[in-house]
Amino acid sequence: MIVVGSGARHLEDEIRALGGELIEVEIRKFPDGEKYVRVLGSGEEATVVQSTFAPQDEKIIELLLIADALRERGVERLRAVVPYFAYSRQDRVTKEGEPVSVRAVMRALGLYYDELYVFDLHNPETLKFFPGKAVNLSPARAIAEYFAERLGEGIVLAPDRGALERAAAVAEKLGLEYSHFEKRRISPTEVQMRPVDVDVKGRNVLIVDDIISTGGTMIKAANLLREMGAEKVFVAATHGVFAEGAIERVSRAVDELAVTNTIPTPVSRISIVPDVLAL
Amino acid sequence: MIVVGSGARHLEDEIRALGGELIEVEIRKFPDGEKYVRVLGSGEEATVVQSTFAPQDEKIIELLLIADALRERGVERLRAVVPYFAYSRQDRVTKEGEPVSVRAVMRALGLYYDELYVFDLHNPETLKFFPGKAVNLSPARAIAEYFAERLGEGIVLAPDRGALERAAAVAEKLGLEYSHFEKRRISPTEVQMRPVDVDVKGRNVLIVDDIISTGGTMIKAANLLREMGAEKVFVAATHGVFAEGAIERVSRAVDELAVTNTIPTPVSRISIVPDVLAL
Repeated sequence: MIVVGSGARHLEDEIRALGGELIEVEIRKFPDGEKYVRVLGSGEEATVVQSTFAPQDEKIIELLLIADALRERGVERLRAVVPYFAYSRQDRVTKEGEPVSVRAVMRALGLYYDELYVFDLHNPETLKFFPGKAVNLSPARAIAEYFAERLGEGIVLAPDRGALERAAAVAEKLGLEYSHFEKRRISPTEVQMRPVDVDVKGRNVLIVDDIISTGGTMIKAANLLREMGAEKVFVAATHGVFAEGAIERVSRAVDELAVTNTIPTPVSRISIVPDVLAL
Repeated sequence: MIVVGSGARHLEDEIRALGGELIEVEIRKFPDGEKYVRVLGSGEEATVVQSTFAPQDEKIIELLLIADALRERGVERLRAVVPYFAYSRQDRVTKEGEPVSVRAVMRALGLYYDELYVFDLHNPETLKFFPGKAVNLSPARAIAEYFAERLGEGIVLAPDRGALERAAAVAEKLGLEYSHFEKRRISPTEVQMRPVDVDVKGRNVLIVDDIISTGGTMIKAANLLREMGAEKVFVAATHGVFAEGAIERVSRAVDELAVTNTIPTPVSRISIVPDVLAL
């Protein structure tokens, strides 16, 4: 039994098409702005799918209200599937006086949910703040399948060392070579970016990251790859948190930009729904 | 040490003027819409003042983020003062499948706060959902002081039997008579409203309620009092959750409409700040 919040309406048709049993839920706002939810079904277990892109706070509160309604109906085991987890980048105190915002949200969800599933969390260590079972799912299968044919015998690259594991997971599914970019200071004012230990000349390249916001790094990396003689350059990311104009800017710089549907965007062509239904 | 959230900025000057020690807090939004908070001070105890009018969900999440930041700084005892408590009217399941929304919010605040203070909660029984100490404060002092001179030897009325206690509290502070309206069905299609056991002729009347939204009841009551020969008719409420145009409609029907500043509105002339500082 699956309940879809307002942050997962865009996944509803595909969930149904793939055989997921959806419970109807009514979600609207009262005239004063308060959310109203009503869940029209019940069972022993329920999975609430809710991605928490903007307006994030509304979607977080909705997760609590839906859970409260399900508990009230006697549902005993509650799972939250939160494909894009809001506040995931606020994972540490960088200036004194800041909160660890992702902790507050994880703890709040832990009040109602027994299990939490997220996709490609910015800092997987923060799952420890959720009191129940918490799992970080990989988008590697989805990204690999989408780009398999386009990429051919190409290379998968991470934009930096920290993102290598994600690129490796995609490359391994495709049986391809992988590496990452590194930044090197070449003068007091200039930093050079370059892929480590791979020859991109004449080959297709897929750059894989977790989040694209402004897309600046991706554009720089793509331009560099072209200069180095790469054939086609593709860019994939799990979460398309695009700043204004970023989709157009990145798209112009590469042969194809595609992200998963954890957040609905015009380039969310890679679906994580099969992974959700496999849970 | 008092920290003021974005839902209590309108109380800041008065808190300072009355000697409250305010800790500076930075509150803004990231470009993607996530809230950023930073608390620039610390101590052993802290009181966070945050009224949760629209956008309610943002203000609730802010309460959690501010609390997380304060805990991170080592604050040991945390109090939340929530003058207007969002979702307070969603206090029971009226149709199967609904949540008890106020419970979800109370529980979430209970993750961080040891004590909760609210004003004139719609259903005070729902305070039981807060795990720590929870107190429902009365606006009676503030309303009584504001209307004392205007009302003279007048009468205080509740719009219905359920609101009698609130009217009684105001009347007792002023040493005045009080009563309530009752509704009587006089035909299958017609309901008559009338004040019980009081003669309003030639006297000033103050009608007191907890929330005014459309103001329909208040306007009906005011018109009826005029027909019955009342002198001046005043309307007071704790929370001015006004629907569009309600302030103007009610104001035209009465001699003065005033609400407390739990929510900032053009008629929020009655201050609860002294009650907050007395905690």
